[in-house]
Amino acid sequence: MIEKSTKIAIIGLGLLGGSYAQGLSLAGYQVKGLDIDEQAVRQAGKNGWIVAGGNDPSLISDCDIVISALYPRDFVSWVNSNQQYLRTGAILSDVTGIKRMVISEINAILRSDVEFIACHPMAGRESRGIAYADSSQFENSNFIIVPTEENSQRAIDTAKDIASILKFGRISVLDAERHDQIIGFVSQLCHVIAVSLMNISDDPMLIDYTGDSFRDLTRIANINEDLWPQLFIANKDNLSREIDAPTEQLNQLKEYIVEEDVSAMRELMIRVSERRKKFDRRK
Amino acid sequence: MIEKSTKIAIIGLGLLGGSYAQGLSLAGYQVKGLDIDEQAVRQAGKNGWIVAGGNDPSLISDCDIVISALYPRDFVSWVNSNQQYLRTGAILSDVTGIKRMVISEINAILRSDVEFIACHPMAGRESRGIAYADSSQFENSNFIIVPTEENSQRAIDTAKDIASILKFGRISVLDAERHDQIIGFVSQLCHVIAVSLMNISDDPMLIDYTGDSFRDLTRIANINEDLWPQLFIANKDNLSREIDAPTEQLNQLKEYIVEEDVSAMRELMIRVSERRKKFDRRK
Repeated sequence: MIEKSTKIAIIGLGLLGGSYAQGLSLAGYQVKGLDIDEQAVRQAGKNGWIVAGGNDPSLISDCDIVISALYPRDFVSWVNSNQQYLRTGAILSDVTGIKRMVISEINAILRSDVEFIACHPMAGRESRGIAYADSSQFENSNFIIVPTEENSQRAIDTAKDIASILKFGRISVLDAERHDQIIGFVSQLCHVIAVSLMNISDDPMLIDYTGDSFRDLTRIANINEDLWPQLFIANKDNLSREIDAPTEQLNQLKEYIVEEDVSAMRELMIRVSERRKKFDRRK
Repeated sequence: MIEKSTKIAIIGLGLLGGSYAQGLSLAGYQVKGLDIDEQAVRQAGKNGWIVAGGNDPSLISDCDIVISALYPRDFVSWVNSNQQYLRTGAILSDVTGIKRMVISEINAILRSDVEFIACHPMAGRESRGIAYADSSQFENSNFIIVPTEENSQRAIDTAKDIASILKFGRISVLDAERHDQIIGFVSQLCHVIAVSLMNISDDPMLIDYTGDSFRDLTRIANINEDLWPQLFIANKDNLSREIDAPTEQLNQLKEYIVEEDVSAMRELMIRVSERRKKFDRRK
C-alpha cells in the first residue's frame, strides 16, 4: 500500500477531483489541490480535503503522485504546459472515460522520467462541481486500470492502491482497445440513448404523467455538454457502431408487438430479466 | 373524503394490490383482500392489512368499493365470472396501465347498477408479489383517473379520494385516448428501450465494467413477462409509432458524432439537460 508520507496532487477540483481529494485525505494522505477556480480550492481547503492548493503549478513539484481530474483535452493541454513541474519518478494518473486517445497523446509528449498510468473510475453524477463531491460514491463502484506494455508494475500497483484507498469495489485491468470498446457500450451508448429519449418530446405536461421508468432512463440526460462531446468523438469508431444495435433491437421488438407474438415477447423478457439481475449493485 | 365506515375490497394481493391494502388499512379503512394464492392472503392478514380475505368472491358482497389489482386480461375475466357478487351501487376501480381496451371491455359487460371508474397509479417496482408491497412507494407519485362521459362525479371523486388516502402526489384526469398515447411514450417506450438495451450483449464480464448509467437504463428490463406483453399489445397502435422516435434521434446523434459536430451536440445536451431537470421527483 502507498505509504502515508506519500504526497498526492489532484489537478482539477470538480466532482471527481473533489471526491478524490476527500477520500484520500480521509485515509490520511497529504493532498494538494490545483484548480483555476479559486472558489473550488477554497472549498476543498475549508472541507479539510487539501493541505495546500491554488493555481500555481509549482505546487506539484514535491508530489509523488499527480492525478488529473480534468476533461480529456484539458488534461493533454495541462501536461503540455506544466509537465516541467513534475518531479523525476513521479506517477501521473487520470480519471478520463476514454483511453486510446488519452494514452497515445499523453505518452507522445510526456517526459521519459515520469510515468503515466491511465485509470477510469466508473463513478460520477449528473451534477458537476466540488459542491457535489462525495467520496462515498466510489464504494463498491467499478475501477478500471488501463496500462500499456510500457507501464511498470510499480505504476499499476499504485493505481490499484489508489482504487483500494478510495474503496472502489471491483478493480479490473484492461487494455485501451478493449476498454474503449466496452465503455462505448456500457456507458456512452447509455448516455446517447438517454439524450435521444429526452429529446423526443418537449411537452411539459408529461411531468404529471411520469413514473420512475422515464426518470431512470433519462437521469443521465442531464449531461455535461463540455465533457461528453469530447468523450463521444474520441471513441466515435466504437460508439457509432454501438448505436446501431439498439435500433435493430427496437425494430425486432416492434415486430413482436405488431404481430402480437406473446411467446416471443415472453421469451425475450424472461431472458433479459435473468440477465439484468446479475447487474444489481453489489452491497 | 370517503367515510371511515366504507368497506373496500382489493382483488389481487400482489405488489400493487398489497400496497393498496396496506395504505388503505393504515388510513383506517376496513379492507378485504381476495387472491387465488392462499399465501398472499395469509401474508396480508399477518401484516394487518386486511380484516378478511380468501378466494371466495362472495366476500365482496358488502363492499362499497372494489379495486382490481389484476392484470388487464385477468381483470376482464374476473368481472365476467364474479360481477354477480358486487352489491348494487358499488364502485369498481382498477390499477391497469392501459385504458382504452380495459374501459371498453369492462363497460361492455358490467351490470348497469355498478359503476366502473378507471385509474392508473404511476407506481410499481421491478419485483413482483406481496413480499415487495410497500405503500410508501405512492408518496408523491403521479395518479391518473380516466373517466368516460358516462362516469358520475361521485365515482370520479371516489377515485380522487383513494389517490389522496394513498398519498399520491399529482392527481390528473385524462381521457382514455390521451392516456394511452402518453403512456405509450413515458412508460411503455421506456420498457421497450430497457429490454432492447439489455438484449444487446450477453457478455457476463460487462458486470465488472458497469457504472450506474447502465444500471439505471436497464433497471426495468427486469420485467414481468406475464403483464407487459398484455400492456404492449393493448396499446400497439401508439407504441409501434413511438418506437420509431428514438431510432430517428439515435441516427441524428450518430451523425453529429461521426461528423464531430461539437456545437450541435452541445446545443442538444444543453436543451435536454434543462428539460430533464423539470422531471426530478417532487420532494
